[in-house]
Amino acid sequence: MQYRFEMAVDLSVPLSNDMPVYPGDPSPLFRRVKTLENDGVNITSMTLGSHTGTHLDAPLHFIEGGRSVDRIPVGSFAAEGTVVDVSRLEAGSGVTVEDLGGQLKSSCEGRVIIVYTGCSERWGDSSLNSNYTYLTDEAAEFLVGSRARGVGIDFLSVEKFGAAQPSVHRTLLGAGLFIIESLNSRVKEFIGRRFLLVAAPLRLANGDAAPCRALAVPITD
Amino acid sequence: MQYRFEMAVDLSVPLSNDMPVYPGDPSPLFRRVKTLENDGVNITSMTLGSHTGTHLDAPLHFIEGGRSVDRIPVGSFAAEGTVVDVSRLEAGSGVTVEDLGGQLKSSCEGRVIIVYTGCSERWGDSSLNSNYTYLTDEAAEFLVGSRARGVGIDFLSVEKFGAAQPSVHRTLLGAGLFIIESLNSRVKEFIGRRFLLVAAPLRLANGDAAPCRALAVPITD
Repeated sequence: MQYRFEMAVDLSVPLSNDMPVYPGDPSPLFRRVKTLENDGVNITSMTLGSHTGTHLDAPLHFIEGGRSVDRIPVGSFAAEGTVVDVSRLEAGSGVTVEDLGGQLKSSCEGRVIIVYTGCSERWGDSSLNSNYTYLTDEAAEFLVGSRARGVGIDFLSVEKFGAAQPSVHRTLLGAGLFIIESLNSRVKEFIGRRFLLVAAPLRLANGDAAPCRALAVPITD
Repeated sequence: MQYRFEMAVDLSVPLSNDMPVYPGDPSPLFRRVKTLENDGVNITSMTLGSHTGTHLDAPLHFIEGGRSVDRIPVGSFAAEGTVVDVSRLEAGSGVTVEDLGGQLKSSCEGRVIIVYTGCSERWGDSSLNSNYTYLTDEAAEFLVGSRARGVGIDFLSVEKFGAAQPSVHRTLLGAGLFIIESLNSRVKEFIGRRFLLVAAPLRLANGDAAPCRALAVPITD
């Protein structure tokens, strides 16, 4: 078994001033505050939310007294991933246990399950920001039962937009799983393939979440 | 050869309001803008510089038309590391070729060379922020000649504080090496040991640098 680091694929979305964010989240602002021309050096000031762009939710996002992002053992951030393809569902659908289950034949223990909804193909189309494909409560419970280490998705949230209660987050985070949101559409390249997902969030002290650069490292025999 | 992901060590410094930053860099501000108590959810707003905390400098930091952090192939961000121990030098010294050379017996090609100055043991001691151990021009040229992929250091900068010209940065970045600054003192645990360094900066569009979570993954036979 070989990890092909040199063939790693970037699963992160770019951070820029016009990037999509979850409705109500802080507006991102990236601004060059020193330039080669004026100051002899390029330096950028970054303002963003802990859930802006590709990021990892820690239990503290929704669980009182839950683990913060700086307290998750870093060994957790490199794990085999499995991509489940539910992109045949219409945008705005709820992903059911049946949608997931048939594709998860081997054990999920210790793995990060990435749900490819296809919504990422329309990243930047604001009509999707409140109408993306999400996990049902039962699907979240199934993933907890499967002993996955974490769950990823290729759009803004695992939760139905406007849900009365954040029950999917609570189910996953409450069971100690982490959640990676806003992965990009290249996750589809790993459907049916073995890969190592590396997604280590910034070490934000007492952070409810933090942005990360997510990489997929192909694994070959 | 085995990568022991489950034994990964965090080489990053925590991001917090009272963290040290390079003199003149933007002041970091991390602020919880929504709370479980008031809003039913924890969300944080983050303001920081592209060079705040553990971060990776791209050529664009000092090279006109140089590569930005989002244009470096992501496979570069996982590479074997080698730690060079120069902590016997007094803080504020310049690291010479002789200091490095004797410890780099095998080829450096494709590796990230991490210089352990020991200054990280005094992270937070502001008297060091303008008097840390740095690389001499000759040491930078030696590292370029050794065909290293990148250079890391366990304090704010590889450059002498107040240098008239950023010649060490220009030498390294101009030759296409990246630079990782503000690694923490745990790099010393890898002196003489094989490990994979994983340090993938945020995907900041056109970024001169970006913060990263840096991990050391032990390699065993």
